[in-house]
Amino acid sequence: MPAPKRILVIDDADDVRILVERQLERLGYAADGAADGVAGLEAIARSRPDLVLCDLRMPRLDGLGVLSELRDKYPQLPVVVMSGEGLLQDAVSALRLGAWDYLSKPIAGMAVLQHAVGKALEKAELLAENQRQRDKLEVLYRELADDQDAGRRLQLSLLPEDGMKVGSFTLTRELLPSSFLSGDFCSTFSLPDGRWGFYLADVAGHGVPSALVTVMLRTVVERWVLEGRDASFFAPSTFLKALNHELLRQRHEKHVALFYGLVDESRSVLACGNAGCFPWPILQQGGNTFAMELPGMPLGLMDTASYDERTYPLLPDTKFVACTDGVFDVMDGGSVEEKSRRIAQAAGSSATATELVQVLGLTQHRARPDDVAVLMLTRGDAHALRTS
Amino acid sequence: MPAPKRILVIDDADDVRILVERQLERLGYAADGAADGVAGLEAIARSRPDLVLCDLRMPRLDGLGVLSELRDKYPQLPVVVMSGEGLLQDAVSALRLGAWDYLSKPIAGMAVLQHAVGKALEKAELLAENQRQRDKLEVLYRELADDQDAGRRLQLSLLPEDGMKVGSFTLTRELLPSSFLSGDFCSTFSLPDGRWGFYLADVAGHGVPSALVTVMLRTVVERWVLEGRDASFFAPSTFLKALNHELLRQRHEKHVALFYGLVDESRSVLACGNAGCFPWPILQQGGNTFAMELPGMPLGLMDTASYDERTYPLLPDTKFVACTDGVFDVMDGGSVEEKSRRIAQAAGSSATATELVQVLGLTQHRARPDDVAVLMLTRGDAHALRTS
Repeated sequence: MPAPKRILVIDDADDVRILVERQLERLGYAADGAADGVAGLEAIARSRPDLVLCDLRMPRLDGLGVLSELRDKYPQLPVVVMSGEGLLQDAVSALRLGAWDYLSKPIAGMAVLQHAVGKALEKAELLAENQRQRDKLEVLYRELADDQDAGRRLQLSLLPEDGMKVGSFTLTRELLPSSFLSGDFCSTFSLPDGRWGFYLADVAGHGVPSALVTVMLRTVVERWVLEGRDASFFAPSTFLKALNHELLRQRHEKHVALFYGLVDESRSVLACGNAGCFPWPILQQGGNTFAMELPGMPLGLMDTASYDERTYPLLPDTKFVACTDGVFDVMDGGSVEEKSRRIAQAAGSSATATELVQVLGLTQHRARPDDVAVLMLTRGDAHALRTS
Repeated sequence: MPAPKRILVIDDADDVRILVERQLERLGYAADGAADGVAGLEAIARSRPDLVLCDLRMPRLDGLGVLSELRDKYPQLPVVVMSGEGLLQDAVSALRLGAWDYLSKPIAGMAVLQHAVGKALEKAELLAENQRQRDKLEVLYRELADDQDAGRRLQLSLLPEDGMKVGSFTLTRELLPSSFLSGDFCSTFSLPDGRWGFYLADVAGHGVPSALVTVMLRTVVERWVLEGRDASFFAPSTFLKALNHELLRQRHEKHVALFYGLVDESRSVLACGNAGCFPWPILQQGGNTFAMELPGMPLGLMDTASYDERTYPLLPDTKFVACTDGVFDVMDGGSVEEKSRRIAQAAGSSATATELVQVLGLTQHRARPDDVAVLMLTRGDAHALRTS
């Protein structure tokens, strides 16, 4: 059985106060008394009753004074005021000051007392329950958000370091998840023969399940490098085909758009393959900027998919920029063609991935409809390219 | 500039109603009028005003009737009542019925009107803002929970199928995450020479970051199998050492407790290694039950860690049971020794991992302080073992 609700009766008329206390006790409540407003506030601070029954006209501090005080200090505490008949203006003032209900003295029987007190306690319980639900929801949300944030930090730690050197290139990247975790990511690796590879991937969906798949994908590629696959394995057409089979084998039914490049600096050649990554990556070198239009099917959809390979000669001043298709959803206004043009322009004028996402206004959206990842590789004088 | 707040004035006295409407308009509100309670309710349903100013004594439906109706249908709509002086009992009734405030007619000037209306609108705005915050929090929580639940399903899909055959054994398992995603998991693999391995792992922490590490770990082991490492690599001491180096290389600073076993059915031998997994796994065969006491350091802590290997002959009737240390936190009452005894007993009497977690009462806790994973491998007549 729950403990009885505790009610404080504040009234300077001893006989009335004691009578009401008795009646409340007979109704199953635990009653206590105070002889004026000052004593009442002290008793409330001391014992935190569940409800206060308060006379209005009292010496030292009257009922309206008690109400003002309680409204600031204990806004949730239900107060029912009692006043002599004919003092209706008092009742109006009290109700406007936040009294929960009003009883005329002498109280017209136990039923009236029971009704007023019971109703106020019920409403207070309802409000308290609402508050508990809200607090609980906040705690639950905070737990999940903290958990996801820790996951996000781990995911970010798996990205190549922003500004790192790969061969003679500088790599910069940005990852803007739609929530905490991202289905987009990028990575790079070096082969023993001096060649190095990079890829930008967009796992279907977003959030935790897609992030789990990015980790699987990244680990698989890393293992391929570590296990010392022979050089031909990393040629784009072979590599993408193997990754396609791997994703189908994993059976999680998340397909992946992925752009892959393999750089052979000794021969100044970039070999590329594209598994459905769009917008087309931008290559800027020797004063020319062009989109690397390489159609191809996303990974993990069809066992028979095959991938074309294209090679580009690398000039001393080179900039490569790729981003995932979330960029179209996050950019403001315009058709895909217009946005593609703006991306190409911004790619040309930006020195780093961070600058690019700022120029495109991607960071100003706090709620992004999709993840966006940007990978930029620069060699030579990126700044000269930028201002030319 | 925001649109002006819309106020509906309900009063059967045309002159009063029109005067109040004019005053409200001069105060910057958009005012509309209705000549009695019925017309007022219709206007409210039609135009959803921001506030209602309502006379009390009216033909057809009076102010108290309007209040009762509104309290049910639009509990958030602020209503300020107006009543002739000397009709204080009406005011008391109205306030008790949920009126937000009370004005005496004739209204004592624009300032009084402005004060009452402004205060009520302000409070309504506050309540609405609270509600919006609560709704937003619920949406945010729901999004994260759905996201994590999708992640959980993906993680579960990576576990070995419950009840699957591995060699001549039946594998059953349970994964009870503390939240949605788990840092505990188990897996199994088969080697081309007919041997097969299994492991139970507990990544430090829980939730999303630990789940990401389980996926990395699982993918690494899978790749080792797929890349066709030679047979000696999968011997427990070699395997655990390699896994230790791999975790240190990954630099995510999450250590892992892991029990690993390699079964050679042609020679009827189980070879085991333990990297800090506790409670000790239970082996039950030939009428004997014993704890496999194999101390060892968790993976990912020290580069120099090495791991002992122990072999057990396998009898036709064999049951192997391992669980992660979350079991101690989730089980009720008793010391670790007592709980270990109860786990060993329950392991002996349970035919599946699911039965074991039920016997130990692990599923009755809705909020678990830690993840728990259980892996059970049985061969021969598990039921006979169970009832013996």
